[in-house]
Amino acid sequence: MKFYIGVDLGGTNVRALLVDENGQTYSEVKESTEKEHGVDYVCSKISRMIRTLDYDACNGFENVEGIGIGVPGPVDTVKGVMIMASNLPGFEGYPIVDKLKEEFNKPVFLDNDANVAGLAEAILGAGKGYPTCYFITVSTGIGGAFIVDGKLVSGGRGHAGEIGNIIVKPGGYKQGALNAGAAEGECSGTAITRKGVAALGEDKVKHAGNVFDLAAAGDAQAKAICDEAVDELSTLLANIAHTVDPHCFVLGGGVMKARDYFWDTLNEQFNAKIHAGMRNHIPLLLKKLDDCGAIGAAMLPMSQLD
Amino acid sequence: MKFYIGVDLGGTNVRALLVDENGQTYSEVKESTEKEHGVDYVCSKISRMIRTLDYDACNGFENVEGIGIGVPGPVDTVKGVMIMASNLPGFEGYPIVDKLKEEFNKPVFLDNDANVAGLAEAILGAGKGYPTCYFITVSTGIGGAFIVDGKLVSGGRGHAGEIGNIIVKPGGYKQGALNAGAAEGECSGTAITRKGVAALGEDKVKHAGNVFDLAAAGDAQAKAICDEAVDELSTLLANIAHTVDPHCFVLGGGVMKARDYFWDTLNEQFNAKIHAGMRNHIPLLLKKLDDCGAIGAAMLPMSQLD
Repeated sequence: MKFYIGVDLGGTNVRALLVDENGQTYSEVKESTEKEHGVDYVCSKISRMIRTLDYDACNGFENVEGIGIGVPGPVDTVKGVMIMASNLPGFEGYPIVDKLKEEFNKPVFLDNDANVAGLAEAILGAGKGYPTCYFITVSTGIGGAFIVDGKLVSGGRGHAGEIGNIIVKPGGYKQGALNAGAAEGECSGTAITRKGVAALGEDKVKHAGNVFDLAAAGDAQAKAICDEAVDELSTLLANIAHTVDPHCFVLGGGVMKARDYFWDTLNEQFNAKIHAGMRNHIPLLLKKLDDCGAIGAAMLPMSQLD
Repeated sequence: MKFYIGVDLGGTNVRALLVDENGQTYSEVKESTEKEHGVDYVCSKISRMIRTLDYDACNGFENVEGIGIGVPGPVDTVKGVMIMASNLPGFEGYPIVDKLKEEFNKPVFLDNDANVAGLAEAILGAGKGYPTCYFITVSTGIGGAFIVDGKLVSGGRGHAGEIGNIIVKPGGYKQGALNAGAAEGECSGTAITRKGVAALGEDKVKHAGNVFDLAAAGDAQAKAICDEAVDELSTLLANIAHTVDPHCFVLGGGVMKARDYFWDTLNEQFNAKIHAGMRNHIPLLLKKLDDCGAIGAAMLPMSQLD
């Protein structure tokens, strides 16, 4: 049995786990990130948390194979640094991988949280047993991860899976630095909320779930917003399917809570938009694991070292 | 040195080659396909052509590692059969791989011609040295291939790279069984010709090259058609880039003959449509090899067996 350390470094909390190759957790520590104290402080905190874990299960720290870290934002996986870190100011370009490598003398790997969650789903969750898996999370943003034979396809600059920027409606809404009509600006939870507030007012719409509830109750404006978003999601899935033809999609994120409203329609539209030879051969699966950031991070060294 | 046999089975001609692992050709046979004589006839012809090759370079047929076949149309790479064969009637589901395996007692691999051409470009051509490469051909149709570490990513049903069906203009032109607004119906050579004929007449437009020539000469209608197609091509490239973040794109196909008109614009628009962290990191390269179908087919066993 092999053992790995997973660290989920978020803007609010840090979690560190000792897990085995089957994803079973043996020891866990959780603390506030306290990012306001600066990058070195946070990095020291992570080191300390790693030391604090109980290594009885593997007969001591020396038997740990490696350390994986998941972070919010795009990562240069080769250099082991974050490229953008809006939720962790100061972490852009900070050599967190080199620091931990030097301190612990173990292989250390860094990737973004969507990739790490996708890796966990592909290896231990809904995608288990499929040779390739495209993981998609539709939440505040839209992110993804492509996993082939239990390994993340990170791409040349670690941007594989940055599918929120795929154009589903040319000339559509321009959100921040994303493309006009990018998926994240058109069919993320944030986008559905924005359209819902504009059409129905802030009283009725606090989050995307409200818009789906109103649509289910028969509100014509809410229905138009939700139906357009689902159509665009099906376009996003079809575009990805024609690019890599995954053995399955795994879908997660807050918007999936409203799946009773759209699941059948999404399946129908997706299958109508792919080549006949692929039709009904790419299952859309629902994310299985909860809170899998740290476990997924622990899968990083496992998938890279084996 | 290892040796492989490559067969390029087209609707008009069949070519068979003996090549080494560097793509050097030692013996070649070419014949008409004569598909009108039926599937068994064509399969026997291929067997005979393979026997006809000169195996002095590898000291006899017994030292050949395997056989690869490229065909026009989507392939079930696991079963080794064509899924659709509009240019080779009767080949749908025909067990060509099993037949040749049985006859020659060697590993045999089948894939479609765009994948095979992409594999050759990735291993021996413009993509040589890049860990991952997305090959795109813009010609009568639009096809592609994703190559990771010298291996084709075929996908669950062999449809990876069927990017002609990616939607670049929702609600756009519906060509055959493709999606409305699919890339192939909007920015292939056929699409540009169709739009050119509609706008400028059959006298002025015989093929896509005429439309690009007229655009270069200042014709406003031709310019609008070409500029829209190039914009849509840049969307297609950006969508693929966000899905897998390849280390390079390799572009080929007849439409690239008009590249002087659009190459700089395509590069600018592509880079404007991808995340800042990827910008200017994914080179658009021009296809290098000519007539690489049979050599690419020979790379199939090489990439699968090594």
